[in-house]
Amino acid sequence: MDQNLMLVTDFYEYTMAYAYFKQGKQNDIAYFDMIIRTIPDGGGYMIFNGLHALLDFIKHFKFSKEQINYLRSTGYFDEDFLSYLSTLTLYIDLYSVPEGTPVFGNEPLITVRGSYVQAQIIESILLQFCNYSTLIATKASRIVRAAKGRSVLEFGARRAQGYAAAIEGARAAMIAGCSGTSNTAAGMLYDLPVSGTIAHSYIQLFDNEYDAFLQYAKVSPDNCVFLVDTYDTLRSGIPNAIKVAKEYLIPNGHKLNGIRLDSGDLAYLSKKARSMLDEAGLEDTKIVASNSLDEFIIAELIRQDAAIDIFGVGENLITAKSNPVIGGVYKVVAYEENGEVIPTIKISDNVAKITNPGYKKLYRFYDRHSKKALADLIALWDEVIPQDEIEIFDPQAPWKRKTLKDYEVRELQVPVLLNGKQVYECPSTQEVIAYHKEQMETLWEEVKRQVNPHQYYVDLSQALYDLKHQLLKEHQSKK
Amino acid sequence: MDQNLMLVTDFYEYTMAYAYFKQGKQNDIAYFDMIIRTIPDGGGYMIFNGLHALLDFIKHFKFSKEQINYLRSTGYFDEDFLSYLSTLTLYIDLYSVPEGTPVFGNEPLITVRGSYVQAQIIESILLQFCNYSTLIATKASRIVRAAKGRSVLEFGARRAQGYAAAIEGARAAMIAGCSGTSNTAAGMLYDLPVSGTIAHSYIQLFDNEYDAFLQYAKVSPDNCVFLVDTYDTLRSGIPNAIKVAKEYLIPNGHKLNGIRLDSGDLAYLSKKARSMLDEAGLEDTKIVASNSLDEFIIAELIRQDAAIDIFGVGENLITAKSNPVIGGVYKVVAYEENGEVIPTIKISDNVAKITNPGYKKLYRFYDRHSKKALADLIALWDEVIPQDEIEIFDPQAPWKRKTLKDYEVRELQVPVLLNGKQVYECPSTQEVIAYHKEQMETLWEEVKRQVNPHQYYVDLSQALYDLKHQLLKEHQSKK
Repeated sequence: MDQNLMLVTDFYEYTMAYAYFKQGKQNDIAYFDMIIRTIPDGGGYMIFNGLHALLDFIKHFKFSKEQINYLRSTGYFDEDFLSYLSTLTLYIDLYSVPEGTPVFGNEPLITVRGSYVQAQIIESILLQFCNYSTLIATKASRIVRAAKGRSVLEFGARRAQGYAAAIEGARAAMIAGCSGTSNTAAGMLYDLPVSGTIAHSYIQLFDNEYDAFLQYAKVSPDNCVFLVDTYDTLRSGIPNAIKVAKEYLIPNGHKLNGIRLDSGDLAYLSKKARSMLDEAGLEDTKIVASNSLDEFIIAELIRQDAAIDIFGVGENLITAKSNPVIGGVYKVVAYEENGEVIPTIKISDNVAKITNPGYKKLYRFYDRHSKKALADLIALWDEVIPQDEIEIFDPQAPWKRKTLKDYEVRELQVPVLLNGKQVYECPSTQEVIAYHKEQMETLWEEVKRQVNPHQYYVDLSQALYDLKHQLLKEHQSKK
Repeated sequence: MDQNLMLVTDFYEYTMAYAYFKQGKQNDIAYFDMIIRTIPDGGGYMIFNGLHALLDFIKHFKFSKEQINYLRSTGYFDEDFLSYLSTLTLYIDLYSVPEGTPVFGNEPLITVRGSYVQAQIIESILLQFCNYSTLIATKASRIVRAAKGRSVLEFGARRAQGYAAAIEGARAAMIAGCSGTSNTAAGMLYDLPVSGTIAHSYIQLFDNEYDAFLQYAKVSPDNCVFLVDTYDTLRSGIPNAIKVAKEYLIPNGHKLNGIRLDSGDLAYLSKKARSMLDEAGLEDTKIVASNSLDEFIIAELIRQDAAIDIFGVGENLITAKSNPVIGGVYKVVAYEENGEVIPTIKISDNVAKITNPGYKKLYRFYDRHSKKALADLIALWDEVIPQDEIEIFDPQAPWKRKTLKDYEVRELQVPVLLNGKQVYECPSTQEVIAYHKEQMETLWEEVKRQVNPHQYYVDLSQALYDLKHQLLKEHQSKK
């Protein structure tokens, strides 16, 4: 872990922790939920991600001497507190949805039970990891779906917002179904397929394009994807690529893996390229296209029957350019008093910002026959969920009711840390990829639609709904 | 330096380096320019940034054994090359515009002269650092200017795209004129003022708001900025803040530094808050506002005479949400043959993508009296720039000509590395902040305007213009 991570934290986490410490409340127990209110890009679902990095952080949680000295230098804290921080380890309970799970707005994705200080102090870093990784997995899922089975490669490192984003974004893209990444560090850290061949600069440093291709083929005959738009795609690039394939690669037992188009009218050029390659007997040669692609351009290229096999997607994926912020928040929902869990609520004039109070659990109902997800239900932690029949209702329109039958129900959050001890074996990235793929099968097509998707049901149990309205009423009467 | 950085590189940098190595071209010399074609958000200028991180990277450039092993495992490279990489150090020449300089589209911001392998292999990381840091400094500059002298605090850590972005974004924000950051790591690493007090969760964990404020005031009486919108800003938050100020802070020799508004109608609430505070004799208490602010919302709040002293800006700054990608590129512009510098050009159907060929220098002309910047000129490296009079022209409309007189001229790129040795003393962040402030004074207000700014002149010398057109003609005739 990069040691700087320990302080990638809003300073108010420390001033609050200091207040709790000086008030003798540092060991009082609170419950926090991490939720994301709104699905980016008007989409129908998100792909939860970021837990692996959070767990790594919590495992290595320890302030260095330099960090304590820095906190001292701010002048805000006394020695008792600094000494307390310097030996602080986390013994929180943490429940989380597994990485790669499709999730929806306003659901508790992570729930933390811990002392005021411990549960509060991890807020910024928890949000930092989960917000970005979930954002990119969600965006990548949109792009991969737009490609309708064609491959998508992640090419964004140079335009990512910082190197941590480049690495975690590449991993997120792979979880959501990309086939490879250009990011070598992500390849190494997460055992992901990396890909790359040549840039324009390589070709420009040769006397001519033919020679550039040929000399490359001689060095890496099994990794030839020629970039064909340096001078003139149809009159120079593709003919030279074909020439090298026929004069060198094929006679020596290799093949031309692909050509890459990086500018111009990709629909037109790809169809022209396909027919030129086919005519030359290079039916196996794939056509890769790049150049500021996103889900909408890819869908449009496919609609125009562009002959593109592989889409290389850079900046629009790695920054989620169309919607570069996911608004995950971490809200206190309960505290303990004499061992009893007391729910708390945050009021707001903005109805969407009113929190769901209490220590809760998140359930997903699947149709027993189709295995499709029917609805999610947020319930209080000690409610018993019926196994055969349940009536659910829209919390925004409680008269809209629906009875579910013949379902299987699954608790979406799993115990990850209990009293600071990791009780969850973090799956490998490959396992997350496989799990994600399987989970996507449980969503109806209508939920996965890019534009105007069906709004999946995320309902509150009657008990939670009643509690929320009771707390709202109590606040109202206090005014 | 985080060791993972060494491989935060597009894999094609290695496959190209391998080709050069196997072709015996690894020590041939090439020149690369880093340019940004388009200013984000339709703005009139950018603030260059990112050099410090690049230099730190180059200083520590060395592949670890694990990284070499990883590259081996990909199966693309032979042992000669892996052994060459494992001892590779960089002895490039690097010229750069200093951090904090206002810059414009299509200018060479960094120029690298080095061996094919060395100059190529740093491409991804160079772009990675400079793209994001320049993007955020540029965005922050817009936000700070919109605030017209009021303070802007950077609050974005939890919504930043990865922790590296959180840290570098906070530094970039400070360079562009923010007054503080909530990011503790950035504060420690770059000696920046950090700030923070309390969140809603803190208040919710007390029986009532008054007690929450009072108990906090008792612990940190000199750092009181009370968040007043947890329950009801005007009926509960502000009255409780005033009560604690008058009953506890003032009698004990302290003061209420501020109140923070985080929701609702900030224009209305801030004016109401101001008059309530003033009526209570708390004229010194500042009003801080946060909640998805950006340059347009801030400008509008000021237009409405909102009584806000300090703006806390989060996600919209740290992700440059309105335009989250800056399209910096790194293009080969020349190579050496028998000691001679041979210019090279990249053709494109898209005129904006045609590169300016050759090894070049970047000059800025200032009016000798007003000290304002008049124009930038890109010239070939060996041109002599006249000191008394020069005719410049618009390269897109060469008949538009203008004669400059009575100017001072300054070379914008400075030598940073010569033969791998650092010849530039990296200024501290505080020095960059001061330099940036001074440089902004050299720009006319018309260039700094947020909407429809005057397009600053970035012209080519006659010799460079002629060379470019000669190379274009040569390519045309080859078809």
